[in-house]
Amino acid sequence: MAMSEVYSMDQRTGLAVESVAEESGAREVARVCGAAADAAAGLDRMGPGGRAALLEAVAVELEAAGAALVEAADRETALGADRLRGELVRTCGQLRFFAEVLREGSYADAVIDRATAGGDTGPGLPDMRRMLRPLGPVAVFGSSNFPLAFSVAGGDTASALAAGCPVVVKAHPSHPATSRLAFDAVARAVAAAGAPAGTVGIVWGFEAGRSLVLDPRIKAVGFTGSLVGGRRLHQLAASRPEPIPFHGELSSLNPVFVLPGAARDRAASIARDFVRSLSFGHGQVCTKPGLLLVPAGTDGDELRAEAAAAVTEVAPSWLLNDGIRAAFREGVERLSALPGVRTAAVGRPADDDERQVAACLLHVAAKELLRPEAPLMEECFGPFAVIAEYRDVAELIEVAEALEGQLSCAVHADEGEQELSGLLLDRLARSCGRIVWNGFTTGVTVGWATHHGGPYPATTSPGHTSVGASAVSRFLRPVCYQSVPDALLPPQLRNANPLSLPRRMDGVRA
Amino acid sequence: MAMSEVYSMDQRTGLAVESVAEESGAREVARVCGAAADAAAGLDRMGPGGRAALLEAVAVELEAAGAALVEAADRETALGADRLRGELVRTCGQLRFFAEVLREGSYADAVIDRATAGGDTGPGLPDMRRMLRPLGPVAVFGSSNFPLAFSVAGGDTASALAAGCPVVVKAHPSHPATSRLAFDAVARAVAAAGAPAGTVGIVWGFEAGRSLVLDPRIKAVGFTGSLVGGRRLHQLAASRPEPIPFHGELSSLNPVFVLPGAARDRAASIARDFVRSLSFGHGQVCTKPGLLLVPAGTDGDELRAEAAAAVTEVAPSWLLNDGIRAAFREGVERLSALPGVRTAAVGRPADDDERQVAACLLHVAAKELLRPEAPLMEECFGPFAVIAEYRDVAELIEVAEALEGQLSCAVHADEGEQELSGLLLDRLARSCGRIVWNGFTTGVTVGWATHHGGPYPATTSPGHTSVGASAVSRFLRPVCYQSVPDALLPPQLRNANPLSLPRRMDGVRA
Repeated sequence: MAMSEVYSMDQRTGLAVESVAEESGAREVARVCGAAADAAAGLDRMGPGGRAALLEAVAVELEAAGAALVEAADRETALGADRLRGELVRTCGQLRFFAEVLREGSYADAVIDRATAGGDTGPGLPDMRRMLRPLGPVAVFGSSNFPLAFSVAGGDTASALAAGCPVVVKAHPSHPATSRLAFDAVARAVAAAGAPAGTVGIVWGFEAGRSLVLDPRIKAVGFTGSLVGGRRLHQLAASRPEPIPFHGELSSLNPVFVLPGAARDRAASIARDFVRSLSFGHGQVCTKPGLLLVPAGTDGDELRAEAAAAVTEVAPSWLLNDGIRAAFREGVERLSALPGVRTAAVGRPADDDERQVAACLLHVAAKELLRPEAPLMEECFGPFAVIAEYRDVAELIEVAEALEGQLSCAVHADEGEQELSGLLLDRLARSCGRIVWNGFTTGVTVGWATHHGGPYPATTSPGHTSVGASAVSRFLRPVCYQSVPDALLPPQLRNANPLSLPRRMDGVRA
Repeated sequence: MAMSEVYSMDQRTGLAVESVAEESGAREVARVCGAAADAAAGLDRMGPGGRAALLEAVAVELEAAGAALVEAADRETALGADRLRGELVRTCGQLRFFAEVLREGSYADAVIDRATAGGDTGPGLPDMRRMLRPLGPVAVFGSSNFPLAFSVAGGDTASALAAGCPVVVKAHPSHPATSRLAFDAVARAVAAAGAPAGTVGIVWGFEAGRSLVLDPRIKAVGFTGSLVGGRRLHQLAASRPEPIPFHGELSSLNPVFVLPGAARDRAASIARDFVRSLSFGHGQVCTKPGLLLVPAGTDGDELRAEAAAAVTEVAPSWLLNDGIRAAFREGVERLSALPGVRTAAVGRPADDDERQVAACLLHVAAKELLRPEAPLMEECFGPFAVIAEYRDVAELIEVAEALEGQLSCAVHADEGEQELSGLLLDRLARSCGRIVWNGFTTGVTVGWATHHGGPYPATTSPGHTSVGASAVSRFLRPVCYQSVPDALLPPQLRNANPLSLPRRMDGVRA
């Protein structure tokens, strides 16, 4: 294999299947970014309706290529065809949802303060009209774990296009054939919808990713990936001659808090659903519950025994790539060896010791979570979790207060536990982006109220989400028009409101 | 003067008047940040109504201290009592406006997607409810040029408190006595409104500023100041173990484009208003028009002659501090010496050569603006501007396309120049935060539609504003509650909507 070729691997066998692309050199990255910059004005001129049609065209093309996409993605990621078919449905649904967001129009945040006459108390105020406009070309770093929903045609790309920003995707090295197929589908949709040719571009290779973040035409980055990689690129983005916003979704433990009443009432079902949640996608999702807090005593013991029994039934799995497998093994070994840590259960042994891993559940007293450096409070990607027993409510709250930024967390309680629940929710709202009640954190609905984000290390931009309607706002910036004549205003701000946008007028929200 | 003392200087005489504080050591910064962190939950519990009352109490206390504040600020900044009385009115108006924003309630962006029943096409969706919550303690670096409106009790502090975030102010070294008086007024208001004691803190000195940005309890930074200082602190914020949002408002040229028709119709009035705008606050405002583009030929010549005549009448001025004065002199000298640059006019000579400066207007052909490195396109703080003649419309558009990120710009045109105006506005919307029509950029209204921001170097966060209602959103982050029982939800998200917030429900904006 030449170093500059990008090969598609069969993740189950570890064998190279085909060469998909060449790594992009600096000149190629510059060319793709130049094409994206050239496309910006045309994409903006398509307006929200035109871009909604573009997103729908992408969905149609992805569906047309669906069988090939699922086959390639399954081979490259070993996630299984069923899961990937579901992910394709989600990906297309997400594109269509952003089309709905565009047509609804409030994403543009159009606000009009009409001029006021002067009077005794001072001079009049000028006519001021503000709306959100596209930032410019966006670099998208897709994730390894959602080869369709958070990759070439995934949520970042969909929300950036919705915002009116051309996109340059840095293809994830774990699924290049899937990326190529998805990119070809997107390119067909771009042509079909009459969008400018450079609307979506793609580059390949690690160095290309760095060049992309540094390219002066790139005005924002959407990244889903590891803490280490994301942090590095975030600092690179801040160090540019023109620093740019970096929206990285990085790392989360997604703890589950089981209150005493819930443990008493529903130990078996909580344990079973917890293990199902932790092993979804072979534990390789950003909302995997990596920590289960249960009360010390018989109810907690029962819950732990049920969880352990369920884990022993978990099938061995291939992970997404060799690096993730190595990190998983290193992590399990390192955490298992910590003082006070016992192994509660391991999953079914691997058929292929070289390439598969078994699920693993560790067991500790909750006080071990609170040690300096708190290694047990860090994400370990893969089919792995820690079950921790808390002595009393004070210790439970202490763990909640010690949490770093989280994408999500879950609380299980029964109806009599109102007061403790309130206390806990108050603490969790300080560090978590989403709080799930009597449920699990995996499975993030794409809707208007969705938030998928959180303080660092969950993300690098706590004010923003990478899933749901508000994801568009990452790639927009306000522009205010002061005293500009109606005919020269963008349609969104004209008196006649030709796009029928919901707008705020003179302080009153319509 | 001991190095650790912070002295108030009389800016007109250069003499130290009094010691106001000691520079804060690392331990003191940590103590103040700790108190801010301790105040966070209580400030949040006050709710929007309680915080609105707090902001109004701050305004009342500032007004009560008004005479002393204006006197100290005038001595420390030499901006003049009239200007500072106006700034005090603005400062108090801004606090009351954020109280109005809190009571109106849509800043919380409350969104509810109720659960849906499952059906043939898939399972039902869970109940999801999202709102914005405070990020946590905010560090505020006030500006030198607005000792009241963008300092201790200025826009950043007001919007952070509105968001529910405690504030630690790093006092600006140019006006410590003003800062002390303003801080005392804020502290009285905090007590009067029953807010937690650590709601607003203050630290002193350059090193304290660095310690503040690095303190783990600080969750965001609001900064108004120089490009060099802001850039350094921005990178410091990104390099923390927990990187945090840094909202810096840094540098802007605020160019004014005069189209041929406007030059023909209104040369004298444009020239006069331009010089009034550029010399407001002795040229030391972030929206100072630093560049005037006029057509080559007789109309442009007339405009330039009128502007030059007006500049010769501008009184000499003290600048805000010795560093700004030195940078002004260096900048004027350096830019005057560039090839193709002529001096169009200088203001009235200084009475005190040592401490005052004269206004200055340079004259170039517009093509000189487009040289590599473009030194004439950078901000030079103080009573200074460049007047540039463009040969033709193509050159005018070329200058517009070459602009870096701007807070604002202005266009002067007559009614017959619709097509050229449209072309120009389209280009300016790509780089400018606010476009003013037939007016000037100084004087930023505080309203719902206000945007005071822009791509770098105007700011480090192009999606946000530091003036107007939306400034609050810099210090908020979303939290989503999934399937949480009504009684455990924050009041903003309960079914009964006890705060009567404008909310989006099932995709429909109310």
